[in-house]
Amino acid sequence: MTELADIGVTGLAVMGANLARNAARKGFRVALNNRSNEKTETLLAEHGQEGSFIGSSTIAEFVASLAKPRVVLIMVKAGKPVDIVIDELLEHMEPEDIIVDGGNSLFEDTRRREKTVSDRGLHFVGMGVSGGEEGALEGPSMMPGGTRQAWDRIAPIFTKMAVSVDGLPCCALMGPDGAGHYVKMVHNGIEYADMQLITEAYDLLRTVYGRSAAEIGEIFAGWKTGDLDSYLIEITAAVLAKQDPQGKGALVDMIRDEAEQKGTGRWTAQSALELGVPITAITEAVFARALSGRPEQRRAAEATLGGMRGGTLEAGQAEIDKIRDALYASKIVAYAQGFEQLTVASKQYNWDLDLGLIATIWRGGCIIRASFLDRIREGYASHPDAQSLLLQEYFSAAVLKAEQAWRDVVVVAVQHGVAVPAFASSLAYYDGLRRTRGPANLLQGLRDYFGAHTYRRTDQEGSFHIRWSQDGTEVKS
Amino acid sequence: MTELADIGVTGLAVMGANLARNAARKGFRVALNNRSNEKTETLLAEHGQEGSFIGSSTIAEFVASLAKPRVVLIMVKAGKPVDIVIDELLEHMEPEDIIVDGGNSLFEDTRRREKTVSDRGLHFVGMGVSGGEEGALEGPSMMPGGTRQAWDRIAPIFTKMAVSVDGLPCCALMGPDGAGHYVKMVHNGIEYADMQLITEAYDLLRTVYGRSAAEIGEIFAGWKTGDLDSYLIEITAAVLAKQDPQGKGALVDMIRDEAEQKGTGRWTAQSALELGVPITAITEAVFARALSGRPEQRRAAEATLGGMRGGTLEAGQAEIDKIRDALYASKIVAYAQGFEQLTVASKQYNWDLDLGLIATIWRGGCIIRASFLDRIREGYASHPDAQSLLLQEYFSAAVLKAEQAWRDVVVVAVQHGVAVPAFASSLAYYDGLRRTRGPANLLQGLRDYFGAHTYRRTDQEGSFHIRWSQDGTEVKS
Repeated sequence: MTELADIGVTGLAVMGANLARNAARKGFRVALNNRSNEKTETLLAEHGQEGSFIGSSTIAEFVASLAKPRVVLIMVKAGKPVDIVIDELLEHMEPEDIIVDGGNSLFEDTRRREKTVSDRGLHFVGMGVSGGEEGALEGPSMMPGGTRQAWDRIAPIFTKMAVSVDGLPCCALMGPDGAGHYVKMVHNGIEYADMQLITEAYDLLRTVYGRSAAEIGEIFAGWKTGDLDSYLIEITAAVLAKQDPQGKGALVDMIRDEAEQKGTGRWTAQSALELGVPITAITEAVFARALSGRPEQRRAAEATLGGMRGGTLEAGQAEIDKIRDALYASKIVAYAQGFEQLTVASKQYNWDLDLGLIATIWRGGCIIRASFLDRIREGYASHPDAQSLLLQEYFSAAVLKAEQAWRDVVVVAVQHGVAVPAFASSLAYYDGLRRTRGPANLLQGLRDYFGAHTYRRTDQEGSFHIRWSQDGTEVKS
Repeated sequence: MTELADIGVTGLAVMGANLARNAARKGFRVALNNRSNEKTETLLAEHGQEGSFIGSSTIAEFVASLAKPRVVLIMVKAGKPVDIVIDELLEHMEPEDIIVDGGNSLFEDTRRREKTVSDRGLHFVGMGVSGGEEGALEGPSMMPGGTRQAWDRIAPIFTKMAVSVDGLPCCALMGPDGAGHYVKMVHNGIEYADMQLITEAYDLLRTVYGRSAAEIGEIFAGWKTGDLDSYLIEITAAVLAKQDPQGKGALVDMIRDEAEQKGTGRWTAQSALELGVPITAITEAVFARALSGRPEQRRAAEATLGGMRGGTLEAGQAEIDKIRDALYASKIVAYAQGFEQLTVASKQYNWDLDLGLIATIWRGGCIIRASFLDRIREGYASHPDAQSLLLQEYFSAAVLKAEQAWRDVVVVAVQHGVAVPAFASSLAYYDGLRRTRGPANLLQGLRDYFGAHTYRRTDQEGSFHIRWSQDGTEVKS
């Protein structure tokens, strides 16, 4: 019998195959399994020389090829398929073995599965993996959630597979049960916001300022250094610069304006609503994609209601800098909201999330990787209890500096009838936050009027109600 | 034995008690039940002379006092208590009997309960009731969902209990199973948006224009006629005019600015996310309440980031009219979004909702009642297939007329650092809608770059992918 494998991967579509190759290249012996053998054979044929693999044609054979306690990484489509594979594995695996789900599973499913698997004496790890196909192969960011015991067993493998930044691997234990998938979900939510903000900057430059895709690409290329330095800005420059391989000008001008989504952005917003955390930028980004997916409605609306208001403007360096500042300030708000959601979820689910550690493992490998995350990491190191990222010195100074430009940009967009939902809602959140006394007193008055929901007073404790339709007196309830 | 009752009400807190009294006042014989007998006795003692009641001290006695097929209206707290009461009732009721849940239940619970109850041969009706305590007594708006057979039995009772407008009762069968509770949920979501918009208008007048509560109350009183004519505008004027019974000036100035919420607004937003319908105004309203509930964070933020930018302005009639127009235009967007959500949900759950009928039964009794709903009713009568309320002639003309004022108001708010999240997000939605070609092409380019998610082209069918990190060629997938 050959030497046993350090880890097994089941589900060899592109993400699973690339993670398996990644592990093998890092010196681990990797067992392979897939529902149809063809994928296993293709992988062995094309990449078998990259490291040490053990193929298998049945689950029993696959499990038998693993060193104990066994580690199996499931890389199948989120949802029902994950449950099916877990059930199959449980027939063959033993207590102390570890099942890792590396798909984009909903954290509530992960919590449920963790319970099922741990009741059988095995460990279940829900692990978010970010970085796309290339990241999976070259070094992704990975966000595992599970027991400390499971982590001790898998850490040597996954921290080596993950990319490292400044000597720190972009993989660390996030917390128990659903913590890893939750962190990955919020990562994706932030990614939605990040991309929407980039899209709004692009739209202003294109629509209000009449710049071409190539020109806008150059502007984004100029933003690759400095505060906005990030993977998404970098690839935006590349996408905008790309010529249509069919020879019809800039590629981006030939792409349909209907965005798709796979669910993690929506889940992030739904969870934030459940927890009562205002994450306006992410949610507006999700809704903007939904609106983009209604081309017939939009066509009818433009016919009835007209398009842009007023003519195009000239964009000098000052205007371009303002758009950059608006993008940066809005981005700070989006991240502040996402991190606040993590804070509240951590309390709700008893995860004890380490926000600085999350910023650390997002610095490389994943889609939102950015130098910006170093600032967040430092911020939480010096102010672990900050009530908001916006109240940490570095970010409050940054947003105050960008604020006037941000307002100017939103004003231009509003005046020209060009939608900037994420810029505008981030600014509204920022302005709503900076209010010791907001206007919700009226809301409470109305709620007391029609629903006897009571109100609290600024000058004394307790709940009060006005007998509005009777004698108008106030009663303490 | 006395004559049997036409309807039974179980759960005699204020809403249940008032609905029971309402039915009795309309000439129906009403059986009463409550977990503790005290509430039943109090109701009989205080209001027994208003009509014909039959008290009961056990569920068995209660059910036995009802004419067949029996109709029981459950008015207990949404959630687990409803399931408990249904289980108890099922022990005593018989096939063909009808159980009506009049609480604010989540429509998915209603769908589940409908299945359980109909499997036993009984009918289950999930009925939204709006109008608060006073409405329950004097005539609410009611939104039942269930079988046509159940409706035929209960219609004579509930249409008489409901308020009527122009001879039409504000109660009609919405559709099967969860349709009634869904319609009520969206009603409440729209109510959140309506109240948030009113709050933003108030905030601008107070903060930017330095008007007193009494002065703003007079302005709202002036809006009670015309396009904004509605119950909420009317009570806003009343709340703002109200003096503090403790003698400290305007009551509203003594109320804490922390809004509470009970869940239906959040559910509306969560469902819209699930269905992929962009309902930005309702969602921003839910998030604004969440932010209002963070007073310590807001205090810290004002200390760090400062308050309003610039000084107060003078408000002449022109400025006041503009705020009214902004409120009206934003309101049209909020309703357009809510009705679109109903359209999509109707398809998703096979409810065959009649949007004109919904507008009809919202004209009286409920919190969002307004002359505005007559326009929606007429709109759907003449354009039943309009892709959006915003594309119906009456509303497209109204919003175009208000548009410049709306933009001006958002600009003033942005420049003064006063948050108007619902005004601004409604405007962004409006501007995003009026775009045959939006900017999501860039988003699709980015998604293809990092995730190989493919894109579609404007000039040909199919899905395409660029081999970004290989040779840069385009492949059709």
